[in-house]
Amino acid sequence: MSVRQAVPLEKSYLLLNHGPVTLISSAHAGKQNVMAVAWSMPLDFAPPKVAVVIASTAYSRELIEASGEFVLNIPSKAMASSVLSVGSVSGRNTDKFSQFSLGTHPAAKVGAPLVEGCVGWLECRLIPEAHNQQRYDLLIAEVVAAWADPQVFIDGRWSFPTEEMKTIHYVAGGSFFTTGSPFDA
Amino acid sequence: MSVRQAVPLEKSYLLLNHGPVTLISSAHAGKQNVMAVAWSMPLDFAPPKVAVVIASTAYSRELIEASGEFVLNIPSKAMASSVLSVGSVSGRNTDKFSQFSLGTHPAAKVGAPLVEGCVGWLECRLIPEAHNQQRYDLLIAEVVAAWADPQVFIDGRWSFPTEEMKTIHYVAGGSFFTTGSPFDA
Repeated sequence: MSVRQAVPLEKSYLLLNHGPVTLISSAHAGKQNVMAVAWSMPLDFAPPKVAVVIASTAYSRELIEASGEFVLNIPSKAMASSVLSVGSVSGRNTDKFSQFSLGTHPAAKVGAPLVEGCVGWLECRLIPEAHNQQRYDLLIAEVVAAWADPQVFIDGRWSFPTEEMKTIHYVAGGSFFTTGSPFDA
Repeated sequence: MSVRQAVPLEKSYLLLNHGPVTLISSAHAGKQNVMAVAWSMPLDFAPPKVAVVIASTAYSRELIEASGEFVLNIPSKAMASSVLSVGSVSGRNTDKFSQFSLGTHPAAKVGAPLVEGCVGWLECRLIPEAHNQQRYDLLIAEVVAAWADPQVFIDGRWSFPTEEMKTIHYVAGGSFFTTGSPFDA
């Protein structure tokens, strides 16, 4: 089971501020799914909001629009192959959690599950914006709870003890960058 | 003068895909400005679009909404102190380019300038969306031209020859991460 500590809502944008790739988990009416999403960003501090891009053809899009909820999970380098796997097949006819041996844990405020092995989690409630969703595949949501693995994010700061625990940034074609060295300007 | 090579529009999202911090430059009616923006993401492949968050109180917001144009400049680590500097003062009553010794070069398709010393540039034309701008400070734009320094981005791939040429990711309070090691999953 992943270790998790609550992140104060006003600090939750810090989980996403440096631009890591995410896994988005969703659930509705007994079905659940998980997909990889590189296009996400914070949208506001308080109340915290996020913006994510999810193709209209994605099964996750159906579950999210039906339930009004999702979780933005932030994977570590150790999960990079899972990120690629869940990004390469549709969950419409398969349970990707069992297919790719991904564990889950119940979220606190939404029905979508937290994905085990990730290092940060943002529980999100969709703010319905039909025009953005239909025209741009752009979903806006309020962050209603946030969690992080205290081994890598504590007191509002990322600090990666090992290479495998670093967050990752997606490039294309199966290539990633790890999050690199911290520095102050 | 920065070295620049055109990036095909369909590959321009790769400049932004890994979530680097950006400088946004703008110009209107003889005034120009530059600000730091961490909240940006690609929004579409073809035609390429981006989404960025710019506070309604920012002087850049006025210039962008009046001109309908901006440039997303991607700075390297060598420019991190400039990123902080331009992010710490308003350009309403000062020319940040001269105050912080930032050079510029004319863009190809928009009136906003390219910021010298950056390693990637996305020339953007605003897609007016009053509701998003007013409610979320969210601006959506089409990428109409893109450029990169061929020392660090060539044939659609980032490859950083030195630490100082790496792109950077903003955390908070003057702290950044460099873009880390590339790997394939």
